[in-house]
Amino acid sequence: MQTLTVDLGERSYPIHIGEGLLDQPQLLAPHIVGRQVAIVTNETVAPLYLERLTRSLASYSVVPIILPDGEAFKNWETLQLIFDGLLTARHDRRTTVIALGGGVVGDMAGFAAACYQRGVNFIQVPTTLLSQVDSSVGGKTGINHPLGKNMVGAFYQPQLVLIDTQTLNTLPPRELSAGLAEVIKYGLICDAPFLTWLEDNMDALRALDQVALTAAIHRSCTAKADVVGADERESGVRATLNLGHTFGHAIETHMGYGVWLHGEAVAAGTVMALEMSCRLGWISAQERDRGIRLFERAGLPVVPPAEMSVADFMQHMAVDKKVIDGRMRLVLLRHMGEAIVTDDYPQEVLQATLGADYRALAQLKG
Amino acid sequence: MQTLTVDLGERSYPIHIGEGLLDQPQLLAPHIVGRQVAIVTNETVAPLYLERLTRSLASYSVVPIILPDGEAFKNWETLQLIFDGLLTARHDRRTTVIALGGGVVGDMAGFAAACYQRGVNFIQVPTTLLSQVDSSVGGKTGINHPLGKNMVGAFYQPQLVLIDTQTLNTLPPRELSAGLAEVIKYGLICDAPFLTWLEDNMDALRALDQVALTAAIHRSCTAKADVVGADERESGVRATLNLGHTFGHAIETHMGYGVWLHGEAVAAGTVMALEMSCRLGWISAQERDRGIRLFERAGLPVVPPAEMSVADFMQHMAVDKKVIDGRMRLVLLRHMGEAIVTDDYPQEVLQATLGADYRALAQLKG
Repeated sequence: MQTLTVDLGERSYPIHIGEGLLDQPQLLAPHIVGRQVAIVTNETVAPLYLERLTRSLASYSVVPIILPDGEAFKNWETLQLIFDGLLTARHDRRTTVIALGGGVVGDMAGFAAACYQRGVNFIQVPTTLLSQVDSSVGGKTGINHPLGKNMVGAFYQPQLVLIDTQTLNTLPPRELSAGLAEVIKYGLICDAPFLTWLEDNMDALRALDQVALTAAIHRSCTAKADVVGADERESGVRATLNLGHTFGHAIETHMGYGVWLHGEAVAAGTVMALEMSCRLGWISAQERDRGIRLFERAGLPVVPPAEMSVADFMQHMAVDKKVIDGRMRLVLLRHMGEAIVTDDYPQEVLQATLGADYRALAQLKG
Repeated sequence: MQTLTVDLGERSYPIHIGEGLLDQPQLLAPHIVGRQVAIVTNETVAPLYLERLTRSLASYSVVPIILPDGEAFKNWETLQLIFDGLLTARHDRRTTVIALGGGVVGDMAGFAAACYQRGVNFIQVPTTLLSQVDSSVGGKTGINHPLGKNMVGAFYQPQLVLIDTQTLNTLPPRELSAGLAEVIKYGLICDAPFLTWLEDNMDALRALDQVALTAAIHRSCTAKADVVGADERESGVRATLNLGHTFGHAIETHMGYGVWLHGEAVAAGTVMALEMSCRLGWISAQERDRGIRLFERAGLPVVPPAEMSVADFMQHMAVDKKVIDGRMRLVLLRHMGEAIVTDDYPQEVLQATLGADYRALAQLKG
């Protein structure tokens, strides 16, 4: 087992990474204060892991709350199911909410923990690669609104993140790829040597090699923990974690939540950020193509939906949280391995980026 | 104008109290960071004060969001109207949400500000006595759930509380009385001399004497600010502010939100707390009756609903947030002017208190 710490003063917490951690009650116990525990999970994950986790919580009064599966259910109607479950079981403010599942479960369970009786304890047990390397770390929680993704939520840190790498054995390949999008992102924004490591280990990762996966998760979580520790509420450097996300959120919103997986939209969105960085002369066409190739090798889309026009992108991006006083801030690459957040770019470069021929770019490299 | 400060380190904020403050733009300007402002109010308050406040915000882009009026609408559906308004007007994370109205508007606007894009700036402009002396100060925000009051919410501090005492001129007498319940509460829990002051000034307060009202609001806010500054998240002394609230919440929940005003339920609930404190031998029957008389002179109910049985009370109190690991903590009076929070009392005293003949108590003093 490897452990690292997210350093946030009195709200610091550990991330444990290893095989079979679901079966180790002693890792959970120090982070549960009362006798009551609610496990929030979904219909897909419950049959796989709910019983095992419940067995590790045998000394507590445990209530399971099982949500429908998918980004399409990341809304307030589903959030109500968590409050209903907690109130029906009469959980008080010393209860601990445990999220068992992917990013959607973690975001909703975390937001519910932030709001229930104005805040109760919270533990993340992420079971997808995406949530293990990204959404379970850093305290962003929330739900979608019909007019925008993650528009309603809270910064709310867990007491513990418990990553059992064995859970990836049951993850569909498409979701593994979606998680790799965020792994590649860390290389692009702050860890150029990691890009080389990923080129060397991409096949092993997709073959579910546990050693390679553990190393990739540890390196990703370390990068994220460093950034979050430096800027919890995203007033500065944390925004670089959103590389590809402004373009990606536009894709998700336009296509309808859940049609493209989050990681798939981030991959195509990051290709757009690479293209814009290239047009600004900050990275070379070869570097851009290197990024595109890595996403392709991870099994990810590198071309935005053909049906989306420049106007579609502009409309959806205008409500993105990266807009401040009407100026659209974008995360771009100053170099490979170094991201910046900026609203200082010619508008026509953005327009050209949105209208670029990504199909041709993808084929050229084939 | 009088100003006091809620001392919470870097999240400290001022409370301004005085006549005509709605018309003083320079009081608002230092607390608004961006160009966007959303005024959340309701159908009753909007015709009275929305135009005046909007005129004081002439240099900003202002969107009004008008909610239906009443505790019955303090739910997630109404909260969505705020998010809808913010998103439709494309407000970004530098927007400022201003609550213009009573406690329901303040609680909902504050919770929306806490959640919108994971937190935006927030200003309280309370227009009822209850919200001026209690709910606008201290950062408790939230909504009700069908299974319990204020079960979903956040601790979220405003940047400013602006109290224009002229707004009380349009307040219905029943709501003025409801506010006086919380004013009396401060005397009971921490300021015995204030009880005498209230006995001397109750008629002036009910006659809307501005000098008396300003003094009562200032003294109440000072008491609340002291308690909140010492214990923001209610791990200790802050809980004493809930005198009468556990019994009162049971009344509100049982009768249906909005049938009894919050202050009315608190008054009857506090009479029950006085009765229990008397049965425990902590205050005398004369002291209990003195409290009852003060509530009566404020125009408040001192008898719980005849239709509520002991079992009804026990059922509703069991889901109250004051329950910790199954033990019911109550706020009681150790002396007049000194409240304590305790779960150390004989269960039969609670049962006897719930079953006491409050009708007789009220008549005896007549």
